[in-house]
Amino acid sequence: MTISRHDGRMFDELRPLSFVRDYTKMSMGSVLVSFGDTRVLCTASVAPDTPRWMRDSGEGWVTAEYSMLPGSSPERIRRRTSGRDQEIQRLIGRSLRCVIDMAALGERSITVDCDVLSADGGTRTASICGGYVALHDACERLVLAGQIPGNPLFTECAAISVGIVDGRPLLDLPYLEDSTADVDFNVVMTGDGSLIEVQGTAEGKAFSRDELTAMLDLAAKGITEINEAQRAVLRTPPEPRATAP
Amino acid sequence: MTISRHDGRMFDELRPLSFVRDYTKMSMGSVLVSFGDTRVLCTASVAPDTPRWMRDSGEGWVTAEYSMLPGSSPERIRRRTSGRDQEIQRLIGRSLRCVIDMAALGERSITVDCDVLSADGGTRTASICGGYVALHDACERLVLAGQIPGNPLFTECAAISVGIVDGRPLLDLPYLEDSTADVDFNVVMTGDGSLIEVQGTAEGKAFSRDELTAMLDLAAKGITEINEAQRAVLRTPPEPRATAP
Amino acid sequence: MTISRHDGRMFDELRPLSFVRDYTKMSMGSVLVSFGDTRVLCTASVAPDTPRWMRDSGEGWVTAEYSMLPGSSPERIRRRTSGRDQEIQRLIGRSLRCVIDMAALGERSITVDCDVLSADGGTRTASICGGYVALHDACERLVLAGQIPGNPLFTECAAISVGIVDGRPLLDLPYLEDSTADVDFNVVMTGDGSLIEVQGTAEGKAFSRDELTAMLDLAAKGITEINEAQRAVLRTPPEPRATAP
Amino acid sequence: MTISRHDGRMFDELRPLSFVRDYTKMSMGSVLVSFGDTRVLCTASVAPDTPRWMRDSGEGWVTAEYSMLPGSSPERIRRRTSGRDQEIQRLIGRSLRCVIDMAALGERSITVDCDVLSADGGTRTASICGGYVALHDACERLVLAGQIPGNPLFTECAAISVGIVDGRPLLDLPYLEDSTADVDFNVVMTGDGSLIEVQGTAEGKAFSRDELTAMLDLAAKGITEINEAQRAVLRTPPEPRATAP
Amino acid sequence: MTISRHDGRMFDELRPLSFVRDYTKMSMGSVLVSFGDTRVLCTASVAPDTPRWMRDSGEGWVTAEYSMLPGSSPERIRRRTSGRDQEIQRLIGRSLRCVIDMAALGERSITVDCDVLSADGGTRTASICGGYVALHDACERLVLAGQIPGNPLFTECAAISVGIVDGRPLLDLPYLEDSTADVDFNVVMTGDGSLIEVQGTAEGKAFSRDELTAMLDLAAKGITEINEAQRAVLRTPPEPRATAP
Amino acid sequence: MTISRHDGRMFDELRPLSFVRDYTKMSMGSVLVSFGDTRVLCTASVAPDTPRWMRDSGEGWVTAEYSMLPGSSPERIRRRTSGRDQEIQRLIGRSLRCVIDMAALGERSITVDCDVLSADGGTRTASICGGYVALHDACERLVLAGQIPGNPLFTECAAISVGIVDGRPLLDLPYLEDSTADVDFNVVMTGDGSLIEVQGTAEGKAFSRDELTAMLDLAAKGITEINEAQRAVLRTPPEPRATAP
Repeated sequence: MTISRHDGRMFDELRPLSFVRDYTKMSMGSVLVSFGDTRVLCTASVAPDTPRWMRDSGEGWVTAEYSMLPGSSPERIRRRTSGRDQEIQRLIGRSLRCVIDMAALGERSITVDCDVLSADGGTRTASICGGYVALHDACERLVLAGQIPGNPLFTECAAISVGIVDGRPLLDLPYLEDSTADVDFNVVMTGDGSLIEVQGTAEGKAFSRDELTAMLDLAAKGITEINEAQRAVLRTPPEPRATAP
Repeated sequence: MTISRHDGRMFDELRPLSFVRDYTKMSMGSVLVSFGDTRVLCTASVAPDTPRWMRDSGEGWVTAEYSMLPGSSPERIRRRTSGRDQEIQRLIGRSLRCVIDMAALGERSITVDCDVLSADGGTRTASICGGYVALHDACERLVLAGQIPGNPLFTECAAISVGIVDGRPLLDLPYLEDSTADVDFNVVMTGDGSLIEVQGTAEGKAFSRDELTAMLDLAAKGITEINEAQRAVLRTPPEPRATAP
Repeated sequence: MTISRHDGRMFDELRPLSFVRDYTKMSMGSVLVSFGDTRVLCTASVAPDTPRWMRDSGEGWVTAEYSMLPGSSPERIRRRTSGRDQEIQRLIGRSLRCVIDMAALGERSITVDCDVLSADGGTRTASICGGYVALHDACERLVLAGQIPGNPLFTECAAISVGIVDGRPLLDLPYLEDSTADVDFNVVMTGDGSLIEVQGTAEGKAFSRDELTAMLDLAAKGITEINEAQRAVLRTPPEPRATAP
Repeated sequence: MTISRHDGRMFDELRPLSFVRDYTKMSMGSVLVSFGDTRVLCTASVAPDTPRWMRDSGEGWVTAEYSMLPGSSPERIRRRTSGRDQEIQRLIGRSLRCVIDMAALGERSITVDCDVLSADGGTRTASICGGYVALHDACERLVLAGQIPGNPLFTECAAISVGIVDGRPLLDLPYLEDSTADVDFNVVMTGDGSLIEVQGTAEGKAFSRDELTAMLDLAAKGITEINEAQRAVLRTPPEPRATAP
Repeated sequence: MTISRHDGRMFDELRPLSFVRDYTKMSMGSVLVSFGDTRVLCTASVAPDTPRWMRDSGEGWVTAEYSMLPGSSPERIRRRTSGRDQEIQRLIGRSLRCVIDMAALGERSITVDCDVLSADGGTRTASICGGYVALHDACERLVLAGQIPGNPLFTECAAISVGIVDGRPLLDLPYLEDSTADVDFNVVMTGDGSLIEVQGTAEGKAFSRDELTAMLDLAAKGITEINEAQRAVLRTPPEPRATAP
Repeated sequence: MTISRHDGRMFDELRPLSFVRDYTKMSMGSVLVSFGDTRVLCTASVAPDTPRWMRDSGEGWVTAEYSMLPGSSPERIRRRTSGRDQEIQRLIGRSLRCVIDMAALGERSITVDCDVLSADGGTRTASICGGYVALHDACERLVLAGQIPGNPLFTECAAISVGIVDGRPLLDLPYLEDSTADVDFNVVMTGDGSLIEVQGTAEGKAFSRDELTAMLDLAAKGITEINEAQRAVLRTPPEPRATAP
């Protein structure tokens, strides 16, 4: 299959990917993740308590919030939490909770905030990829501060979009492709190749089981590459930082 | 595989299913759908205009709202639109829009309201199944009133939940099974066997590609049976009713 | 006086009335009440605590919520709590609290939810009539579960609308009559003939003391008949059900 | 019947009543009404349009808003529109609309704002009494400005509370009596003795038809006296003031 | 400099100023302050606790709320807390907190509500002037009730507006001048001549340091006169009143 | 005066200052401004219409929004528009409107969004400095696109904080100094040395006229330096970009 993606990528190729660690210095974890022109600032904040319904369980909690800055899109976005935002932040939270041992985290909660600085498709999957790194740094700093014996994250968590555009399965869709896709899938996987979430939506045109298979294969390939980048950035420990008790 | 589901069903068996047509008389379409003890009142209301952003397009629009009555659950539910509600109503709307020809509907909008009277698992998939029947009746009444030449729905739309409980794939999960499932999938399909939505979530434990395949097979079987029930109830036309111009 | 009501009723005749007990199975009390085409689902939920301001008083509390489903009216109703809804739910709560012994209920609260499935006039009075039956079943189940020694309801509670249409007092107005009435009254009474609430409103045209007297007489007759129907449905005890502690 | 009301009044005696006209100078009508220590500032503002649903009807509209200032009560009141506030402002609006000829008012709307400066019982009935005077002045100024040929108000509108305290019917209840009343009635009447609204509520104890009759007699006496005070203050025309077109 | 202000005042002259003490009887302090046609009702309510973040500090708290009544302006004002209202109430609260000894107040909080009855410019500065008097009376009543040994207010607090209109600095701007001012300043000072707040805004046209100096001189003169009026009204103690514990 | 500021700066020295132009590519103007560890992303979005109240005036409009990202502070900030946020965004908008010719802008509106990525004091003044640069780029691109003949900004706009800490006037306060300051001033000036806004607040301790003078001198010095940095970054034109009509 020869390619003709507008940005010159192969059908199964990710956009240029980077994680800028400690992009700001105020949070326990702070990562600027980029997939091409999509840039999301992910910060992880630790609080010494948990939601009311899980008090005294001995376990911790991880939650996420997602928002797009008004200037992140060519058409300015109004400041309000839309239904779409809520759906996305629930997805991010569920995904991250699948790779962390809540008992090992202990009775504290971590909020992962994903604020989109620049939106060019794939903001929710980028949020999961960057949110994992920010969460890892926050946990690592709890370890460095002696608050927990080891990092409660037991595998990586990453996500990518795939879709069918003009009948062809494509990996990591920027806005231009996303807006013309017949099918739009978001896949979240662990670092050991298991599935966490599969969310696929026909945009006006239903799809077949064979197309589903092709998309899942593409997603698995992309996520493997993202996991490698995550491991690379996390190879060295973060600088210690003062923590809440 | 011998069964041991608490309600005596086989692993691939639907709960007793019924559609009560014209359950109330105020809306253009009004259907009470039941899957066992899950009961949803679906009504379709027609308005003579469309959202601002699609004015003068010559096309119509279909949207959905979803809510649980406070008494639909053993623990009373507060009256407010939660993030979960919004996520579900977006799913119902997207699904129904995949099986309707918006140009044939013309510049009018139909709102499908899905109000859960009794919740025992699978309320969002029941809403899609019943919402399709209510939408069909509303369209049929527009035809009977001479407002559109033919019904703009071109195939059925149905949905079902599947999951993995104690390592076994099961079809159509009531609350008791749903609350202990390792994986929870909702699948929406058309009457001709194509996929509209696939939404699967690991509840704390990631899943494999083989498990995914088994669940999709189960869902396809269930949806075929639901389509037959939908066709049966819609075989006769609804009574005519006064319509908006 | 010969009649000419559009549905063939005498001026002092109620619409066909029914109470469907345990219409859903999730709540402690669940009653579908119908006055003609007006149908309201009333559910009673018990919680083991009371509002903050009455803690440690040894007494219980009863409150109500009222809402119309979007499809309950020919013109779709938006989902939001209007001023009218709040006014009605305050009326329902006040009325039911007049016939229950709060000390005998003990420190628990019961919420009576009245959700209008189909609205053809008289939804607030139907809510009171059906809410009483749902509340009675919830209390009876508390007795059956041994949580309270006896039912704290000491008399019936029922309500009906009366009005003046074309100069004639009429009982139990459906929408068609209600929308052309000169005066609109809602009367709430106990099972022993005392008044709980009298709410009458001139719709653009003031009324005389004689007209008021005629309307109150009509209301008393109707409520007596409703009380009989309530007693009939409550003659047998409800099935036991698991209760909160 | 000898009296023993704490403020020395007879059972059928109003509190000292006054209307201060043009209390502020910004509105078309502005009246400070006092019933004893209950003081309400009523202002009437004219706008040159009407609500959307009545456009092009050739008729006008009157609406009301009601609010209690935080410092109007010994226990500070939070600034928010409660359900009670909404119920009261609906009552004020309905009452005033009963005594005005909307066609004679023409396509303009008048908002009557009733802000309680000091609350000692009977704030809603005082609001109706003062709101009528403010509305009258606003209409009179429209006449003076040549915008309408004559005042569209065709009779007075006034209201008073009555109740049963310790078994005795009493007129015009201050807070101390209101808080211990068994029954609480608000009656709105026109200047020619017809009824506009009758709203009576048993506070925990139902009441008889005879008690209702006694209360309505008391209310009629009080309202006749209020009407005289209203006529006295409105005998002279207000100063002219610039009006909206 | 000869004058030509529309109301005949000199450039450095205040409008007629009055404080009506105990204007209502429900609050611990209640003052109607007037600067010409600007009238603000200021009430001070005492509550026996403090905000959560300062519990157990042994100190008290003072906060303010500000609102304009709908009829206070020729064009009716909608009931909602605008950004402007919030900005003003933060200013009032900060200003009053500068002249009170929180430790001497003890663990209680006082809310000063400033409700504008009539708005003709300078409502925020009038609120500070009147709010101080209401706060003083509330504190004095705490002293009279033996709850605190002495009044914790250690100096006066007053504010005034100054501006540049047609190139001339003017004191105490009514609406007519304020709406055409090039620069608008609000200055808050203590009774001993120190500055608490300086807030100046160019209305479209920037200003010089010399102009700033001239305005501050004018403000200091006006505030000295207001302080004298405050001292005069507070010379005699208020009547005792029942207080919260 | 010898120094001992914790970061080694002189009393009249700014923190390291930078403007990163076109930090994101989606908006017409996008600038990341840093004052030490305070970093604000300022974006300017152009819309082809103006607020309702200024339609058909031939003039344009500039408005601002301000928000802090949750992770911008050591203690996580909740996502909601606080009273403080509203006050700040009103200040930013007023300031920028003082240096732009609205008639030359024409009937379009520009929204300047200031989102704080990292907060270490002085976020509102940094927002004004960066917002000016983003606004300038947006206007310049309108010129490049031929939509307006020349840039409607006629001078620079910049702001800085000054304060009194331990009795000493200091320029450009980071959080550590700001939180212990006796007085906190924000000064906004034009590129030609005139004042736009002066906002000074005593934090519990009033201040003298001499102290005010010292602070204004410091602010003027700092703003002159910021203006130079603004001019430097704007010396070259931005890349052209597609614009709204």
